[in-house]
Amino acid sequence: MKLKIESEVLKFKKLVRLDSGKRINSCEIAFKTYGNLNKNKTNAILVCHALSGDQYCAGMNPHTNKKGWWNVLIGPGKVIDTNIFFVICSNVLGGCMGSTGPSSLKPKTKTRYGLQFPVITISDMVRLQEKLITYLGIKKLFAVIGGSMGGMQVLEWAAKFNNKINAAIPIATSYRHSAQNIAFHEIGRQAIMADPFWNRGNYYKKKIPKGGLSVARMIAHITYLSETALQRKFGRNLQNSDFFSFDFDTDFQIESYLKHQGSSFVERFDANSYLYITKAMDYFDLSANKGGLAKVFKNTNVKFCFFTFTSDWLFPTSETKTIIKSLNSSNSMVSFVEVKTDKGHDAFLLDEPEFHATLKGFIEGQITQQKI
Amino acid sequence: MKLKIESEVLKFKKLVRLDSGKRINSCEIAFKTYGNLNKNKTNAILVCHALSGDQYCAGMNPHTNKKGWWNVLIGPGKVIDTNIFFVICSNVLGGCMGSTGPSSLKPKTKTRYGLQFPVITISDMVRLQEKLITYLGIKKLFAVIGGSMGGMQVLEWAAKFNNKINAAIPIATSYRHSAQNIAFHEIGRQAIMADPFWNRGNYYKKKIPKGGLSVARMIAHITYLSETALQRKFGRNLQNSDFFSFDFDTDFQIESYLKHQGSSFVERFDANSYLYITKAMDYFDLSANKGGLAKVFKNTNVKFCFFTFTSDWLFPTSETKTIIKSLNSSNSMVSFVEVKTDKGHDAFLLDEPEFHATLKGFIEGQITQQKI
Repeated sequence: MKLKIESEVLKFKKLVRLDSGKRINSCEIAFKTYGNLNKNKTNAILVCHALSGDQYCAGMNPHTNKKGWWNVLIGPGKVIDTNIFFVICSNVLGGCMGSTGPSSLKPKTKTRYGLQFPVITISDMVRLQEKLITYLGIKKLFAVIGGSMGGMQVLEWAAKFNNKINAAIPIATSYRHSAQNIAFHEIGRQAIMADPFWNRGNYYKKKIPKGGLSVARMIAHITYLSETALQRKFGRNLQNSDFFSFDFDTDFQIESYLKHQGSSFVERFDANSYLYITKAMDYFDLSANKGGLAKVFKNTNVKFCFFTFTSDWLFPTSETKTIIKSLNSSNSMVSFVEVKTDKGHDAFLLDEPEFHATLKGFIEGQITQQKI
Repeated sequence: MKLKIESEVLKFKKLVRLDSGKRINSCEIAFKTYGNLNKNKTNAILVCHALSGDQYCAGMNPHTNKKGWWNVLIGPGKVIDTNIFFVICSNVLGGCMGSTGPSSLKPKTKTRYGLQFPVITISDMVRLQEKLITYLGIKKLFAVIGGSMGGMQVLEWAAKFNNKINAAIPIATSYRHSAQNIAFHEIGRQAIMADPFWNRGNYYKKKIPKGGLSVARMIAHITYLSETALQRKFGRNLQNSDFFSFDFDTDFQIESYLKHQGSSFVERFDANSYLYITKAMDYFDLSANKGGLAKVFKNTNVKFCFFTFTSDWLFPTSETKTIIKSLNSSNSMVSFVEVKTDKGHDAFLLDEPEFHATLKGFIEGQITQQKI
């Protein structure tokens, strides 16, 4: 008998305890699945989304009416083939697409959490994903995969639940957020909090802090692209004419592009969720655990397959090499590919043939080994 | 007889015509000089300041009670020796330290320009500097020197007034602003303009847009530093304790540092000036002139000495190499040093021994050649 589940919400009856020491009552995790779970429940792949992602990783996103954020990779006949795999993707704790977060209603008062929502960590997110997997009756995941913040979750899975996953595929990520990345996030948060409409997080019945969130998104967006790609795609091309406008409207195409990124983001994302999720990323540091990275992954049976992209300056290859060095020293099974591309951090979301071909090869190898 | 001038203001009696086609009435340029002009008026060095700089390049800045922004380089016995040279530095047109800009009073109405101030260009700035030099009785400058936007002015001088300068020393700069740099500037401007206190530039008698300007400064500040320097200086060090705060105050030292950069900047800089000066930088592109760079510098007699810094990702060495290639192909006199440092773009303001030693050598060579 095959378990068939589609868009659902897992409600926690017990209090959910967080790393901060605080607890959440009536916590919910929204998730979406694709394909069918096989009889032995050995074909499940958990997909972890990035900062601005959601559970709609494939097919159509019913909220935006656009394709899922990893539709290029996941679906029938694709690299992550939903004819073969049961794909699960859940909105992270703290998010704004159905999982409990700062925009959710508090169970008792039925008012929005806002800043009363407790600060969360990547580890908190992953613990709830693990409960979701258990709820779905899955004892061991075929693989956990994700890029950027999704990759942090993958590493956290490998660190904390190594017996519950076969393979870990961290992409364009790091074992800890760097000073520069914290800096970019903090500026985004300052932009939101400087917006008077933010109103200390209490804006849900009023005007939302569009200006601040839009600026935060624009800042982040630059870090997702490479200098080369920006120059190739936009250069110094003007938007409307052959002449400068000599005003503060849009002169250059790059300006128009960024403004569009900002203004479309505020339509789909909650400003407080942006604060909470960026903070969770900033807090992430597997090497801060006692004994460092070597201890965290000691004697792991997880099969790792890392991907980085040459022009990704947000999560440069050097960070991944640090963790690989640690894994190699403990004789772990590690594959690693640095994909040559000028598309920057965003490359993990795009149709990058070398990335997709290598990932396909790794997955096929695991299919043979795991006999699914 | 030696001409001795200190802090002064040059007032233009005629209308000043701008690249935009607009004109400014009663325009003023504030400047500061150091050292004495020699009899033959051959020992004058024009120092051009960067985006947030001013005319106080050496000694003490009377407004901030801090040392001048290039005091490490300029002064008695220093690399730019004010016992030998007559150093001139003027606040750029559009600035907020005495030169006419958006915070200045309109001559007729005695109200502040705000957004009624015309959009300016690097070329506009340099044309007024040239008039200042003429006013000071100088026919030919010993050298023009500047970093970042100051370097753009140096290149503009070499392009437009090559007979009026002996040497040009462009540092950590480019012949045109890149797509990524325009993007960072535009986000800074968006942050300012998203601040309701900005009020379409009309805030001088009210609350100023501190939040927006502070965020703009923080964004820019990251681009002035290298990832390596940030990691070395701050890493993931916490500000106040060994534990995360689990709130949205300051956790990391890098956050505290950036906030300080933002909040101290708003005390000394005008938000509208920030809009105008960044726009001028974005518009800068010497290669857009008819015939490109090759034509711009054809048959120049200017002696060039370029400096770049290995970890400067705002104005990477590759951009300077493009202009050097063009100069070399026209048989120009070009020196070029790429200084190895992890201090990023900001290195041009710091005590970088290799930079200072090479610059000293170049200047001494020119002293011999020019017989001053």
